[in-house]
Amino acid sequence: MQFPRITPPDQQAHREAVARHEQLTKPPGSLGRLEELGVWATACQGACPPHPFVRPQVVVFAGDHGIAGYGVSAYPSEVTQQMVGNFLSDGAAVNVLAAVAGASVRVVDVAVDCDPDTASAPPLVTRHKVRRGSGAIHLQDALTDAEVAQALDAGVAIADEEVDRGADLLIAGDMGIGNTTPAAVLVAALTGTEPVAVVGRGTGIDDAGWMRKAAAIRDALRRARPFINDPVALVRTAGGADIAAVAGFLAQAAVRRTPVILDGVVVGAAAMVAEELAPGARQWWVAGHRSVEPAHTLALEHLELAPILDLGMRLGEGSGAVVALPLLQMAVRVLAEMATFADAGVSGPADAPLPTG
Amino acid sequence: MQFPRITPPDQQAHREAVARHEQLTKPPGSLGRLEELGVWATACQGACPPHPFVRPQVVVFAGDHGIAGYGVSAYPSEVTQQMVGNFLSDGAAVNVLAAVAGASVRVVDVAVDCDPDTASAPPLVTRHKVRRGSGAIHLQDALTDAEVAQALDAGVAIADEEVDRGADLLIAGDMGIGNTTPAAVLVAALTGTEPVAVVGRGTGIDDAGWMRKAAAIRDALRRARPFINDPVALVRTAGGADIAAVAGFLAQAAVRRTPVILDGVVVGAAAMVAEELAPGARQWWVAGHRSVEPAHTLALEHLELAPILDLGMRLGEGSGAVVALPLLQMAVRVLAEMATFADAGVSGPADAPLPTG
Repeated sequence: MQFPRITPPDQQAHREAVARHEQLTKPPGSLGRLEELGVWATACQGACPPHPFVRPQVVVFAGDHGIAGYGVSAYPSEVTQQMVGNFLSDGAAVNVLAAVAGASVRVVDVAVDCDPDTASAPPLVTRHKVRRGSGAIHLQDALTDAEVAQALDAGVAIADEEVDRGADLLIAGDMGIGNTTPAAVLVAALTGTEPVAVVGRGTGIDDAGWMRKAAAIRDALRRARPFINDPVALVRTAGGADIAAVAGFLAQAAVRRTPVILDGVVVGAAAMVAEELAPGARQWWVAGHRSVEPAHTLALEHLELAPILDLGMRLGEGSGAVVALPLLQMAVRVLAEMATFADAGVSGPADAPLPTG
Repeated sequence: MQFPRITPPDQQAHREAVARHEQLTKPPGSLGRLEELGVWATACQGACPPHPFVRPQVVVFAGDHGIAGYGVSAYPSEVTQQMVGNFLSDGAAVNVLAAVAGASVRVVDVAVDCDPDTASAPPLVTRHKVRRGSGAIHLQDALTDAEVAQALDAGVAIADEEVDRGADLLIAGDMGIGNTTPAAVLVAALTGTEPVAVVGRGTGIDDAGWMRKAAAIRDALRRARPFINDPVALVRTAGGADIAAVAGFLAQAAVRRTPVILDGVVVGAAAMVAEELAPGARQWWVAGHRSVEPAHTLALEHLELAPILDLGMRLGEGSGAVVALPLLQMAVRVLAEMATFADAGVSGPADAPLPTG
C-alpha cells in the first residue's frame, strides 16, 4: 500500500485563527486547550473563522482474534458478533454517546468470526470483510500479505466512502474480543518497550488472565521484532485485519484532509502503523482521551499527541473519542461566534490604568 | 444566614444506578469517570434510570473589587460592566459554550462598579445588586455585615428563582476584574496556605503585577486570618459581594436538592465558604474542571472534589463547568439508554470459555 505524500493542515488558516483568538473578548490563552483545538480545526478546514462540524462520522471496525481462544480476555469471542448487532440496534455505549455529540455511527465487519452469509448484518456492514478472525499471533501470523493489503484497502475505501458522503470529521472505533493483545504487541514493537510494560487488563481480566496475556504478548512480540521497520510485515505477523483497516482509514483521512479524533489503545496502535505508512498523517489527528491501557500512553507519546480527556475509560468502540467531540465543537464555535473586543466595546489589557497603590 | 441541614442525594437511587451499570453492554467500569458521574446524577435526581438534564442554567455573578485599582489585574475595572453587556448580547465565551451544551445563561449584577439606574441592564440583572464594588481588601473590609447577609440572601434568592423556573442543574460563573485576588485570600485562609502558594496570573498579569498581587494577598490574608472559623466574617473582611452571593447560591442549590457543576477558582473559593455555611452541600456539587490558578487545586482538594476536565482554562464565567456539561449529559444518557446484556442478547464475562492454551 503506497499512500500519497501527506500535506499538512493549512498554515495560513492556522495563523488567522491564532490572530482571531487574540481579538475575542477573553484574556489571551484563557480557554487553554480549547484554543489550541480551535486553531487546529481551523487549519484542517482551511479557512478562518471555522464552521461547526456538520457530519461527524464514527466507524466501528469489528474483528475477532485467534488469541482470544487462549484466555486473554474476560469475554468469549462470540461477543464481537453480538455487539455488531447491538451497534446496529443503537444499544451500545458509542451509539448513546454519539447521539449526544451529534455523530453518526457505522459498524463494519472486517474480520468477525462468523459467516457473513448467515449474519443478519446488511451489506454496508459486511462488504469489506477480509476473513473470519485473525490468527493467534503468539503462534502464527495474524494475516497473509494479501490479507494485509485487502484490509488496508478496506480502510481506505471506507474513509473515502464516508468523506464522499459528506463526513467532515472522522472517528475510528474498535470492537473485537482479544484486540488489546495485538494492539499491545504493536505498540511494544514500535516503541521498543518490554512486554510487561504494555500488558493491560483489557475488558477486565483477572490476575491469572493477565499472566496468560503477558505470556502471549511476550511470544507474539518475539515473532514481531524482526519486522519493526516494515509496518506491513508487522501487521501481518502480530496485528489483525481490523487493526490494518483502521490504519488504512486513518492514513486515508489525512490524504483526504479530513480531521480525526483518535480513541484508545487499539486505534492508537493502528495510528502508529498509519503514521509509519503515511508519515505526517498524525497532523490530521487529535487524541480524544487517554485510556487506562498502559500501551496507550506509550502510543500517544510516540505520536506526540496529548489527550484531551483522561477519564479512566477503557471501552473502545470509539467511545473516548466521541466523548471529546463536544469539546472540539465548542472550540470551533468559540472561534466562529464569540464577539471581538471591538464588536462588544470591551476594553483590552492595553487599556489598564497604571497602578495607584 | 442559617441554612437548613443538608440532606445527601438519594442512596437508594445511587445503589440502583451502580447495579444498572453492571447490566449494560460494556465491561463493568469501562466508562470510568462517566460511570461515577451517571451514578451521582441519578442519586441527585432520586430515581433510576435518570433522565437527561432538560434545563441546565448558568448564572454569572458580576462584581467589582477595590483591589483592582491597585495593579493586580491586566484589565481595567470597567471591563466588568462591559462584559455584562457582552453576556446580554450572547458574545462572551460562556454564551457560546452554553449554546453548544444546551444551557441558558443569566447574568446578575451583584456589585458592579456602575450606577444601576444608568445601566442599560434589565431588572433581572440588577434587582439583586448589593453595592458598587467591594472594598479593597488589603486595606479595608470588602463588605459590612449587613452587606454580607444581603449578598448571601441574593444568592439564595437567585437559586430559588432558577429552581422554581424549572432549572434541574445549576452552574455558577463569575465576572469581575480583580476577583482572583479575594478568591486566593479565602482559599489560603481556609486551607492554611502561605500567600505565595495561592498567587496566580489571573487574566494574565506580568511579573510586576504578580508581585503587587502577592503583596496584596499577603496583606489581606493578615487581615483575614483572625476569622478563619467564622465564614461570614471572613467574607466580610476579605471576600466580596459577588463571592458571597455565589456561596449563598451554591448552598441553596443543595438545600433545593439540585445538582451543581462547579467552575474555577472564584466559584471554588465561594464553594469553600458555602460548605462552611451548609456542611454537606458539596455532595450536590461536581467539579467541572481544574483551573490553572494554583488556589483552585487547593480548593478542590479541600472539598475532596476531583475535576472532570483539566484543559488549562482560566477564564471564569462558568466556562469550565459548561465545557463539562456535555460529559455529564452523556453519563446520564448512557445509564438511561444503553441496552442491557439481556436486552441485546450479548454474553457476559461469566460466559467466557476456559482457556484452551
